[in-house]
Amino acid sequence: MIFECDNPAAKPEIKVGNVVLGGNRLVLIAGPCTVESRSQLLETAIAAKEGGASILRGGAYKPRTSPSSFQGLREHGLELLAEAREITGMPIVTEVLDTTQLETVAAVADMLQIGSRNMGNSVLLQKAGAMGKPVLLKRGMCSTVNEFLLAAEYVLEAGCRDLVLCERGIRTFETATRFTLDLNAVPLLKRQTWLPVVVDPSHGTGREELVSPMARAAVACGADGVMVELHPCPADALCDGPQCLTPEKFHDLVKGLRLMASAIGRSV
Amino acid sequence: MIFECDNPAAKPEIKVGNVVLGGNRLVLIAGPCTVESRSQLLETAIAAKEGGASILRGGAYKPRTSPSSFQGLREHGLELLAEAREITGMPIVTEVLDTTQLETVAAVADMLQIGSRNMGNSVLLQKAGAMGKPVLLKRGMCSTVNEFLLAAEYVLEAGCRDLVLCERGIRTFETATRFTLDLNAVPLLKRQTWLPVVVDPSHGTGREELVSPMARAAVACGADGVMVELHPCPADALCDGPQCLTPEKFHDLVKGLRLMASAIGRSV
Amino acid sequence: MIFECDNPAAKPEIKVGNVVLGGNRLVLIAGPCTVESRSQLLETAIAAKEGGASILRGGAYKPRTSPSSFQGLREHGLELLAEAREITGMPIVTEVLDTTQLETVAAVADMLQIGSRNMGNSVLLQKAGAMGKPVLLKRGMCSTVNEFLLAAEYVLEAGCRDLVLCERGIRTFETATRFTLDLNAVPLLKRQTWLPVVVDPSHGTGREELVSPMARAAVACGADGVMVELHPCPADALCDGPQCLTPEKFHDLVKGLRLMASAIGRSV
Amino acid sequence: MIFECDNPAAKPEIKVGNVVLGGNRLVLIAGPCTVESRSQLLETAIAAKEGGASILRGGAYKPRTSPSSFQGLREHGLELLAEAREITGMPIVTEVLDTTQLETVAAVADMLQIGSRNMGNSVLLQKAGAMGKPVLLKRGMCSTVNEFLLAAEYVLEAGCRDLVLCERGIRTFETATRFTLDLNAVPLLKRQTWLPVVVDPSHGTGREELVSPMARAAVACGADGVMVELHPCPADALCDGPQCLTPEKFHDLVKGLRLMASAIGRSV
Repeated sequence: MIFECDNPAAKPEIKVGNVVLGGNRLVLIAGPCTVESRSQLLETAIAAKEGGASILRGGAYKPRTSPSSFQGLREHGLELLAEAREITGMPIVTEVLDTTQLETVAAVADMLQIGSRNMGNSVLLQKAGAMGKPVLLKRGMCSTVNEFLLAAEYVLEAGCRDLVLCERGIRTFETATRFTLDLNAVPLLKRQTWLPVVVDPSHGTGREELVSPMARAAVACGADGVMVELHPCPADALCDGPQCLTPEKFHDLVKGLRLMASAIGRSV
Repeated sequence: MIFECDNPAAKPEIKVGNVVLGGNRLVLIAGPCTVESRSQLLETAIAAKEGGASILRGGAYKPRTSPSSFQGLREHGLELLAEAREITGMPIVTEVLDTTQLETVAAVADMLQIGSRNMGNSVLLQKAGAMGKPVLLKRGMCSTVNEFLLAAEYVLEAGCRDLVLCERGIRTFETATRFTLDLNAVPLLKRQTWLPVVVDPSHGTGREELVSPMARAAVACGADGVMVELHPCPADALCDGPQCLTPEKFHDLVKGLRLMASAIGRSV
Repeated sequence: MIFECDNPAAKPEIKVGNVVLGGNRLVLIAGPCTVESRSQLLETAIAAKEGGASILRGGAYKPRTSPSSFQGLREHGLELLAEAREITGMPIVTEVLDTTQLETVAAVADMLQIGSRNMGNSVLLQKAGAMGKPVLLKRGMCSTVNEFLLAAEYVLEAGCRDLVLCERGIRTFETATRFTLDLNAVPLLKRQTWLPVVVDPSHGTGREELVSPMARAAVACGADGVMVELHPCPADALCDGPQCLTPEKFHDLVKGLRLMASAIGRSV
Repeated sequence: MIFECDNPAAKPEIKVGNVVLGGNRLVLIAGPCTVESRSQLLETAIAAKEGGASILRGGAYKPRTSPSSFQGLREHGLELLAEAREITGMPIVTEVLDTTQLETVAAVADMLQIGSRNMGNSVLLQKAGAMGKPVLLKRGMCSTVNEFLLAAEYVLEAGCRDLVLCERGIRTFETATRFTLDLNAVPLLKRQTWLPVVVDPSHGTGREELVSPMARAAVACGADGVMVELHPCPADALCDGPQCLTPEKFHDLVKGLRLMASAIGRSV
């Protein structure tokens, strides 16, 4: 298949803005779950940068299970993300929910995120893959690793080579965690593809106290980076508060990752 | 919530073409998984009609896990479905994969199907719900019953009142069946909403020998109809052959359902 | 394998006391989750008998997740079960948790129940199968149908031919039901073995309002009987109250099953 | 509850023979899945010792899904384990399947293992906990973390304080791995109890190429040790060959763990 490791088109290192993913240096993607306001975003973005993050994440269009939940600031959220990039210098990854949003999102984002709910949406995969932008593809919450690779194939076949896979937890019977972060997928994916793999322990566990240990574990089994949610005041977050780190805890997480990284000959 | 049983906007009976769903009469939705050719579709549609089906199903746009799989006849498939309706008089339900297909599909279909992979796609739910057409919403393969109801709420809030829910199997550890058809959802949904509920034992089990017994069980626990896949020659089907009934087996299934229906004071 | 349908040792009808399982007549197994007291058991047993049950169930030794939960009346519970049999004439099925209890339980019980937690306990399967008593084997809550058949093989190889299989729900991500009653297993098991199959919708759903519709569905897809929990006052039950039927609701359930049974040429 | 961290009876460090579990030093438990022969066991035990293991594992009584599978050397297997201890000096952990085996196994073993299939077997938990021996309790393959803790409570309440918990993979829809090793359980358990926690990546993944990366990840998120299966020639193993490491690969695994351990201030 197109993503096999001996493919001459393989690009194990890809670039998002000036950031290299898949190389020796681990990449930290951090930011708020949702862009809530200018001050919340800028405060979080600056804390992310200071803490060691090199890519800023933040949701402008939010996929919510209930129509009563906050659906995101949308176009205004994109403007704020652009301002945060201006200030911090970090490239931006943000989610696109539907093919009709592609042009608008791609005009601002440095990397298009396809979320877990859309991993099986072949039309979106194809069109996002044809935008000429790097793509971050999250594993579907009930997708096997094999189905994840087939979804990746849709993006690659559409012309995108700057593709990053993200493990973010699967649905199981366990209720102590929001999802079951499936780290087994990391060495599986690294053996079967040349694509960089990052891990999202915030969604994968749903509990901020597990984010740091699971981020370390992700790096220990071969992840090329981690993606975490930050909020200046998690208790006030409009979305996913229980899994958001404070800037202080993010600092601690990065400290732990530096030790891990050096143990395996990588850096942060 | 909007779908609660005491909602004055409740419409327990809805119409698709001239067919009533949610009434005393059980509704059989049958047809090929995929529209493969004119002769395959017409032969199947006529057999479905003769067997007792009142709505024709058939995929023009197919959501496939792999980009190498057959993706459907698309616009030409819609034309063939329109011809099959002409000949048999049966209204048509067919899947829409993406918001950009909505106009094209709605121009032909009597009912828009939102498939399992798209149940969590809030943008599609909202836009499909605003098309002025009945909608058939399939449960996501890893969605709880509560999440299914929240997805239904997106469609209803967009203005659609002619909404039908479809249980089609969830993902579990069991490998003897393709999915685990979760009939528990039928009485749960019937108690919590006024919406008609149909069951798809073809996808739910993935094995044609289980389709008939599980269709009977669906009716026994309160389903308002069943949706099954037929093929004149399942071994030649381009998609999902192992779960397709022959026209003869469909006849037997309907015979069994008639007995079930009369035992509970309903008809087919 | 030993349980294949063309095995000359096949015994599709088995007897528990004077009750035939696997024949044309459906068998109702009913009684309390746990034997709590003489009056509770006798009241429930008489109601079960009057309602149409032909085998009495009741736990003397209880497998509990927490050591703080009530563990059953044990030997005294067995004495009460014997008295209830005396009064009602119904044979008794009760669970054995450990090989050291086998002699004691078999001295009283007409049928030995191996519960879901013990389905993979090969030592207990073998020793229970050698006791010369009928065995009711419940499916493990995370066992595939194939593993269930292999567990049955342990019992059969130990010499027991009077074996009944019981589907009782599997563990999935769904939280609206206690377990996911997997009725797909019924036609699967009936096609692969000559063993009678009963269904326990009380444990399978954990919600009394779902017991009756799922019992009907079980019969509709081929079950040879159903096993349900009754309590004179479910709100006072020491165990599993939310899934216990009152005697009145059990009457309604049986009425519904009679209609189902006659539709498929069986009786209750 | 009894296992809460502020319990004055807490014993975060326990001893198995002369080996401390739960301290700063990580413990490696290694050995064959099954004791197959004297030469196989001794060769494996010596390789385990040389590689850095400090406790020898090996099954004498085997819990097998099918009665046709090899059931273990039983008493002879215990004798061989005792000889291997004599030669290598390593204490022995081996599984007990049933209460009737407890005396026999406890006469030889330094630590009693309760396997995944028996985690919910409260009678065995209680009797094993009363033997005066350390106990290794494996998580049930469909048990929540909370149920795992309640099972631990049965052992502790029976008097055992030398209890070690073992995460070994849960059952999910994913088929690329034998089970889904749930490392999220490690930090969860370490926060909720004072008990040492080890991880079994051999059973948890079922694929030898994943054992080493997942062992590293286990240590990175807080495990006190790992338990792995070795075989001199995995292709010839009577049981679980695909997940067995060769002695060479075990050496590599330990090398990786040493780096991990030093990064987090522990040792091997």
